[in-house]
Amino acid sequence: MRAAVFRNGQIVVDTMPEPIPGPGQVLVKPLACGVCGTDLHARLHAGKMVEMSQFLPWRKPMDLTRDVVFGHEYCCEILDYGPDCARTLLQGTRVVSVPRIIVDGRVEGIGYSNDNIGAYAERMLLSEQLLIPVPDHVTSELAALAEPLSIGIHALAKARLAGDEVPLVIGCGPIGLAVVAALKNKGFGPIIAADYSAKRRELAVRLGADIVVDAAVNSPFQTWEEHAKLSPAEIARLPFSLIPPAPIKPCVIFECVGVPGVIQSIFESAPQNARVVIVGVCMETDQQKPMFASYKELTVQYVLACTPDEFAQSLALISSGKVDVGAMITGRIGLGEVAAAFDELASPNRHAKVVVEPWR
Amino acid sequence: MRAAVFRNGQIVVDTMPEPIPGPGQVLVKPLACGVCGTDLHARLHAGKMVEMSQFLPWRKPMDLTRDVVFGHEYCCEILDYGPDCARTLLQGTRVVSVPRIIVDGRVEGIGYSNDNIGAYAERMLLSEQLLIPVPDHVTSELAALAEPLSIGIHALAKARLAGDEVPLVIGCGPIGLAVVAALKNKGFGPIIAADYSAKRRELAVRLGADIVVDAAVNSPFQTWEEHAKLSPAEIARLPFSLIPPAPIKPCVIFECVGVPGVIQSIFESAPQNARVVIVGVCMETDQQKPMFASYKELTVQYVLACTPDEFAQSLALISSGKVDVGAMITGRIGLGEVAAAFDELASPNRHAKVVVEPWR
Repeated sequence: MRAAVFRNGQIVVDTMPEPIPGPGQVLVKPLACGVCGTDLHARLHAGKMVEMSQFLPWRKPMDLTRDVVFGHEYCCEILDYGPDCARTLLQGTRVVSVPRIIVDGRVEGIGYSNDNIGAYAERMLLSEQLLIPVPDHVTSELAALAEPLSIGIHALAKARLAGDEVPLVIGCGPIGLAVVAALKNKGFGPIIAADYSAKRRELAVRLGADIVVDAAVNSPFQTWEEHAKLSPAEIARLPFSLIPPAPIKPCVIFECVGVPGVIQSIFESAPQNARVVIVGVCMETDQQKPMFASYKELTVQYVLACTPDEFAQSLALISSGKVDVGAMITGRIGLGEVAAAFDELASPNRHAKVVVEPWR
Repeated sequence: MRAAVFRNGQIVVDTMPEPIPGPGQVLVKPLACGVCGTDLHARLHAGKMVEMSQFLPWRKPMDLTRDVVFGHEYCCEILDYGPDCARTLLQGTRVVSVPRIIVDGRVEGIGYSNDNIGAYAERMLLSEQLLIPVPDHVTSELAALAEPLSIGIHALAKARLAGDEVPLVIGCGPIGLAVVAALKNKGFGPIIAADYSAKRRELAVRLGADIVVDAAVNSPFQTWEEHAKLSPAEIARLPFSLIPPAPIKPCVIFECVGVPGVIQSIFESAPQNARVVIVGVCMETDQQKPMFASYKELTVQYVLACTPDEFAQSLALISSGKVDVGAMITGRIGLGEVAAAFDELASPNRHAKVVVEPWR
């Protein structure tokens, strides 16, 4: 079968052996798979992921001398079952799952692994136990967005908003857009979202942002402050305090960029007591001045992946049609175009989410 | 009057004009004042504090071409009142207060300010509204510890422990010891505390640490893990989950060192989902690899100062005699010895908290 393989730092199309489902596993045909920002980072910084794995005992590090197949935002069709399966879902059923697979009772990752190939391939394996069937009215490419959207749902769950916060989303790539969609779905707002790209700001509005900021022109934090001011009535209700609290609503910032320098820029501009949720994954060494965070008493919550429950919520939200997540799909490509798409995605004025259709 | 003045990066003893209390202010005589790690950092990195102040609109930056008098951990005696005071406390009463002063209705800091001198001086000003009288049985030097101890109480309040966590305190200088004392007072434990200095580990035990680790010999995190293991009975009670939770108690780490590199070392060694409370103030640029924190989904809570309520709790805890905070006092000096003490405090095997007695 064919796959877009990560080999020697490049993405190349090659043939590879058909995967064979083990106990509890299912052979599936990827119908659609989103290109994730982490894939782009991983192509450049795979060595840093390997280096980090030694500190994460539950992660088997990639062997970069061997092939890896990325792709963890997939909607697939069931082709065949391995041994010891309940076979509840018929062959041909479209399914999604969290990017995990159970191998000999252990949970392993899919997509950044030599053993468990991702969905930039004509066939792959999933765990029967983790499958969620896709409703008929949901297209495969929308279903594939359940994974990136679940990251927004997860980030929001981790942020534990009380409801009085004004959220600020820094970066409107797919993850920032997922956070906007998750915020909108729960009714939090006004949602302020910032990006340099006009295209991405337009998408942020479609996904539910109330105010968008071109960070090249205005300070996202100044815009945030204008919309976070308490009304005179709210100020009058503030509790008495010797050191008066600022007459402003609580600030929660979602960092959805994941490149060096962004966290420190937030430390510099965030208001006192802000909560910062780091959703972007910065794989490089970052320079920070912790004193800034200390003096402002910031909370920084780093988040990564979703729980199976959040993943199911994400598919349900897509299925409900309440949020126009399809708006973020800006390209559809075959396996042969994956390498070019990795370069293309560096142009945020044209692209947000590119979907690979490996069967093309 | 005499004061130990911060001038041109050095501490020098000089005379300066007597301060004159404004409305609501009180002229006091410092009886005892602790040397704080932040004073030591400020002597080296005052320029960085000034640079940061432009991002903290509520802070008036120090003018380093002018004199500054440090000292914000004080117990004082009331000498005289300025205008518009209620004069509830008699002259001669010993008092403490949060290191803040109210000037024309605005709250300003004491000790890192050209205007509001700290307690390394024969006289200083406080706000009547913020004064707390010291009970007769509490010595002045113990009362002066209310401020550093309150930082531990504040850090613990910010950490919002549920009670099932195993706390790990990294660094047993005065702030680490304050965290240990605060944890002990609330009954949290077992408390694991790590320091390179035998003297400081001994102090940690006196203040309530259950297990101390010489970080030069053993990994604090490995020791933590040994004491955080769930019992078979607790493991049996874990909820069913597809991706099983680690059979370990929640981890909360108090970073009480405040020098570059410590936060990244915690990112590397902390277990999944750990909560990190940054109590040490790192004034230098730090190198971090945010990816580590992302993959472990760490929460990093930066804390700084205490609330007036936490400060009052701190004095009450000292007054109760429940925690042997006096054990951390390792030296008593006059104004002329402050400069030498700043150097001396770099030797953690001899010193923890040095108390300045400006009247000597």
